[in-house]
Amino acid sequence: MTNKITVGVIGIGRIGKLHIDNILAMKQVEIKCVVDPYIDQAADWLEERHITSYSTDHSLLFSDKEINAVLICSPTDTHITYINLAIENNMHIFCEKPISFFDDETLTAYNAIKNSNLKVQIGFNRRFDHNYDQVKELVLQKQIGDLHLLRITSRDPEPPNHDYVKHSGGLFMDMSIHDFDMARFISGCEVTEVYATGAALIDPSIKEFGDVDTAIIQLKFENGALGVIDNSRQAKYGYDQRIEAFGSNGSAESDNDTKTQVHLTNEAGVISNPPLHFFLERYENAYQAELKGFFNSIEQNSEPSCTFLDGIMAQRIAQAAKESLETGLPVKVKTV
Amino acid sequence: MTNKITVGVIGIGRIGKLHIDNILAMKQVEIKCVVDPYIDQAADWLEERHITSYSTDHSLLFSDKEINAVLICSPTDTHITYINLAIENNMHIFCEKPISFFDDETLTAYNAIKNSNLKVQIGFNRRFDHNYDQVKELVLQKQIGDLHLLRITSRDPEPPNHDYVKHSGGLFMDMSIHDFDMARFISGCEVTEVYATGAALIDPSIKEFGDVDTAIIQLKFENGALGVIDNSRQAKYGYDQRIEAFGSNGSAESDNDTKTQVHLTNEAGVISNPPLHFFLERYENAYQAELKGFFNSIEQNSEPSCTFLDGIMAQRIAQAAKESLETGLPVKVKTV
Amino acid sequence: MTNKITVGVIGIGRIGKLHIDNILAMKQVEIKCVVDPYIDQAADWLEERHITSYSTDHSLLFSDKEINAVLICSPTDTHITYINLAIENNMHIFCEKPISFFDDETLTAYNAIKNSNLKVQIGFNRRFDHNYDQVKELVLQKQIGDLHLLRITSRDPEPPNHDYVKHSGGLFMDMSIHDFDMARFISGCEVTEVYATGAALIDPSIKEFGDVDTAIIQLKFENGALGVIDNSRQAKYGYDQRIEAFGSNGSAESDNDTKTQVHLTNEAGVISNPPLHFFLERYENAYQAELKGFFNSIEQNSEPSCTFLDGIMAQRIAQAAKESLETGLPVKVKTV
Amino acid sequence: MTNKITVGVIGIGRIGKLHIDNILAMKQVEIKCVVDPYIDQAADWLEERHITSYSTDHSLLFSDKEINAVLICSPTDTHITYINLAIENNMHIFCEKPISFFDDETLTAYNAIKNSNLKVQIGFNRRFDHNYDQVKELVLQKQIGDLHLLRITSRDPEPPNHDYVKHSGGLFMDMSIHDFDMARFISGCEVTEVYATGAALIDPSIKEFGDVDTAIIQLKFENGALGVIDNSRQAKYGYDQRIEAFGSNGSAESDNDTKTQVHLTNEAGVISNPPLHFFLERYENAYQAELKGFFNSIEQNSEPSCTFLDGIMAQRIAQAAKESLETGLPVKVKTV
Repeated sequence: MTNKITVGVIGIGRIGKLHIDNILAMKQVEIKCVVDPYIDQAADWLEERHITSYSTDHSLLFSDKEINAVLICSPTDTHITYINLAIENNMHIFCEKPISFFDDETLTAYNAIKNSNLKVQIGFNRRFDHNYDQVKELVLQKQIGDLHLLRITSRDPEPPNHDYVKHSGGLFMDMSIHDFDMARFISGCEVTEVYATGAALIDPSIKEFGDVDTAIIQLKFENGALGVIDNSRQAKYGYDQRIEAFGSNGSAESDNDTKTQVHLTNEAGVISNPPLHFFLERYENAYQAELKGFFNSIEQNSEPSCTFLDGIMAQRIAQAAKESLETGLPVKVKTV
Repeated sequence: MTNKITVGVIGIGRIGKLHIDNILAMKQVEIKCVVDPYIDQAADWLEERHITSYSTDHSLLFSDKEINAVLICSPTDTHITYINLAIENNMHIFCEKPISFFDDETLTAYNAIKNSNLKVQIGFNRRFDHNYDQVKELVLQKQIGDLHLLRITSRDPEPPNHDYVKHSGGLFMDMSIHDFDMARFISGCEVTEVYATGAALIDPSIKEFGDVDTAIIQLKFENGALGVIDNSRQAKYGYDQRIEAFGSNGSAESDNDTKTQVHLTNEAGVISNPPLHFFLERYENAYQAELKGFFNSIEQNSEPSCTFLDGIMAQRIAQAAKESLETGLPVKVKTV
Repeated sequence: MTNKITVGVIGIGRIGKLHIDNILAMKQVEIKCVVDPYIDQAADWLEERHITSYSTDHSLLFSDKEINAVLICSPTDTHITYINLAIENNMHIFCEKPISFFDDETLTAYNAIKNSNLKVQIGFNRRFDHNYDQVKELVLQKQIGDLHLLRITSRDPEPPNHDYVKHSGGLFMDMSIHDFDMARFISGCEVTEVYATGAALIDPSIKEFGDVDTAIIQLKFENGALGVIDNSRQAKYGYDQRIEAFGSNGSAESDNDTKTQVHLTNEAGVISNPPLHFFLERYENAYQAELKGFFNSIEQNSEPSCTFLDGIMAQRIAQAAKESLETGLPVKVKTV
Repeated sequence: MTNKITVGVIGIGRIGKLHIDNILAMKQVEIKCVVDPYIDQAADWLEERHITSYSTDHSLLFSDKEINAVLICSPTDTHITYINLAIENNMHIFCEKPISFFDDETLTAYNAIKNSNLKVQIGFNRRFDHNYDQVKELVLQKQIGDLHLLRITSRDPEPPNHDYVKHSGGLFMDMSIHDFDMARFISGCEVTEVYATGAALIDPSIKEFGDVDTAIIQLKFENGALGVIDNSRQAKYGYDQRIEAFGSNGSAESDNDTKTQVHLTNEAGVISNPPLHFFLERYENAYQAELKGFFNSIEQNSEPSCTFLDGIMAQRIAQAAKESLETGLPVKVKTV
């Protein structure tokens, strides 16, 4: 741990800021440069953190020979451009999900990465969550025997605005993609087929964008197990994130985190805390851990826990789910 | 409540005996006659209960003018015969699920029932369970707002033997049919389409009988809500019976009953009771309540809580699920 | 089990009626006679149950040679009279708690019982509760190692009226006496010393009767373990009945029973069922089991699970607690 | 928040190191000097953190005019000396609990503090815990109505070694003192009388030091409410930290924090996580929050949340408990 890792950050939205603050608490990493087309709006925020090198021009970042690694936190449709630039400039890559909306450009980048020595990690933060990690561990240890059924519940506290919906790639690509990755992570196995149903029950007007806000997606796994994901854009009680892995010997189930372990008992019943309301609270530790994992894999020259291929596969399940919703038929997931 | 209801029972298997014992504890009802082709094997059991009128010949029962109501607890393929005889002899009918494996004979009986004044109740005991009843109540009161998602988990503690499997009509008709009824009961709405996946993961040899032991069934409701049922023939930890109704304002969830509320905390963690192991324990109260409901509807000339039509609709969902499993495609549920 | 046990019941208040209904559901027992000074008020209730032999005169009962056993459910200050009459007439005795307010008459009766072959059981129903029984079992099996601390919470849903308070013998003799018995039952060991504090926080006017409605009682056990009981006459959320046995290897804890296992999650949090509200619901099974236990001990000529001596010892702890409250000092419990 | 607070730390044991690491993550505070008689053993640890000014001689610290505040983390018997030096040198004081074993020196210091403008905070970290803070809030809001009963459970995962026991001041002064402070914090009211029982059940040999490892302490509050604390030096399952505040309208209860919300269900039952094992994990956030609170009170010239008087009162309850254990009698708590 003698040399610090020097990092450039692309995109200064909510998630970019989150990563920057997490990096500032790490002794082994230094932020050298931040770029964003609207960087001016974040100037004060950056100065407060003593980050003085920032620009609207990403070439400032990619031309800096001291930068070892880049965090891509910009909108999805710009990811591949920055990934390619990072590969060209020999920079390790941490890229937010999804990699891209298009398969061909993703595969081209995938081939370039395979021919490099670069570490590339995709931002599926839930792999680093204490609860999901524990379920994964119990499955790996065969404490539930062989996996038979996997149930994932994933519900947001409130729907995004129309503008976000329009550019999100749809529920499956934007939101369920985390669950598709969880399905692969927990099962340790590929998803081969999906069948999706969906509806616009919260905000019927999003049908205009061809999107849904409520969905159930059924999964078939390569090893014969079955899975199901249920999604909603609006759980009034908070961010509902649960998983159950059921197998030949038992079941491992992860419930929601809460702010306190306090309950009030009165004439209305026993009232305990709802799930944490927001993904930033729920996955606060996971976001820290995923970056630590990324930087460790650079330092130790080891494979990241969530690879580019993991990103591709989650994306393909999302694409299959979208096709299933459109056709009303089960759809096979393309293999790489 | 001046005149007792006089009852005949057809079929002296496990469920027939259960109902007889429950009736013996009711003051308003008298058991007059019990018939079964193998009645001799139960002679001691009946004598112990002071039931002295029993026979292998069902005509003893149907010719008895004092009998007002009949409980049909025989194998499914005999149900319709006994239902028709009961109608002919003007006897109220409590019939175990499923009504029949065939649609045409069920409809013929349905028409005859509609033209009669008879009370007919189908044995979906879970409608009388304290937990499910509470969820239903919360949904009815709109405490969850509008229903968006319905999740049902229903897992048996151990698989039936091959002989049972062969005559059961398959997982969907034998086991999931309870869940199909629950889906209609809780939502208060028809299921319009199903998509089912299944696998023989516990005992691959049941594939010979064209059956599965693990399944996920997706449901579309008439009102736009989505549902999903997961089934397993073997939850090593007991009889797992849970439901969640999620809606625009929140979620109502029913967890498993347990034997005690005691937990032991030691170095291994906090160990609490598994679900009750067997359906007879779990639904002990529900079995009593469903018969009370049936007899009350006779006395008060009111509609039973679980009608013949409810039986038909659950059966049709089961048939659609079976077809979906066979074709790999979503299947519309036939309306009556 | 050839001959039925024939029973007489003294006292037709709430608890007398409860026992009568429980006995009516038992095949092995017959109620022959019921006596109470105000029996007329219960005439209809008795006739409905086909009990035709009842009187204001208890000699009707004690002179009936067919009666084998008597249930004493009358006010505490009459218990000893009836106990003595039962002994004289060679009738087995089930007597509600407490046996008496006075030590000398209790001891006299105790000696008479020791010289008889009669089965005598005191009505500490909680010994027959599924939860407490499970805690007892875990303690016996040494699953918690050696007992170090015993915590008992026992709170009523609402305070009794002043008239009841006046004749109750005070909180410790009327209510905590159940907890004193639990302390002995769970620990399997005598209580040697108590220290009690109490206050009239719910209804200050009961101070007139020298009583309290809120109390904490500390216990020292013969084996060195420590215990504590907390009591309240009014838990607005229901009948709160919990216990924790903590030892060298862990802890066994019993939580409250609830009506359902359903919880509603909404913006207010996760709302689950409060404790069952009333002792008749909470201990419904325990009341049935204690009578079954009593009748079994008669049939099988075995020692009842809750003996006259158990009744004496609980009473002595109650007396010591009362003295402690009055003197403000710890008080030794008298041994027999 | 323009000028940093400059801090000196006295004592580099476990708790001193914890505070130093927490301060290093705070932007508003700088550590200037660390002193400890055995500082050499921590030299590497300090250098790693770029702390270069350290000494065995505390005059280095107290003569440094740049230092505004001092953290006293040395053994209890040195606290008063350092407190007095800090007062003399006009330094704000954060002092670990207990302040001292002797009342007179504590009172002398108290008078000096009252005549100064210094901020003095005592290290009762639990006041800053998310769970206890929530219970306090519910009590303050009268969500439980008026407080009637307060129950505190506080059990360590393993007993300290004999050397620690010898210098600890005994269970009440070392361990229960946190619970005494909690009793005052949650109730918002003084404790007027205590009655304590205790035993050496885990390690009988600590009787030599006049100490106990298992105890129950009963409390009377000024407002008439009653309280009880149970302590054990060894809960095999982890650090057990619970509280219940029961009142005229309901109850607020705080359960243990756990590492995950995952449970495994198998033939043994439902197995969930034990309490966090160690106080450093359980109160990780509380330790950070108490220092933030201290520094904020310096910056904003406001009263600390846990004052010197709070320290005195907890100490007096501990002294009364000790006297009660020795005399076997209830003991009044001295007022200031």
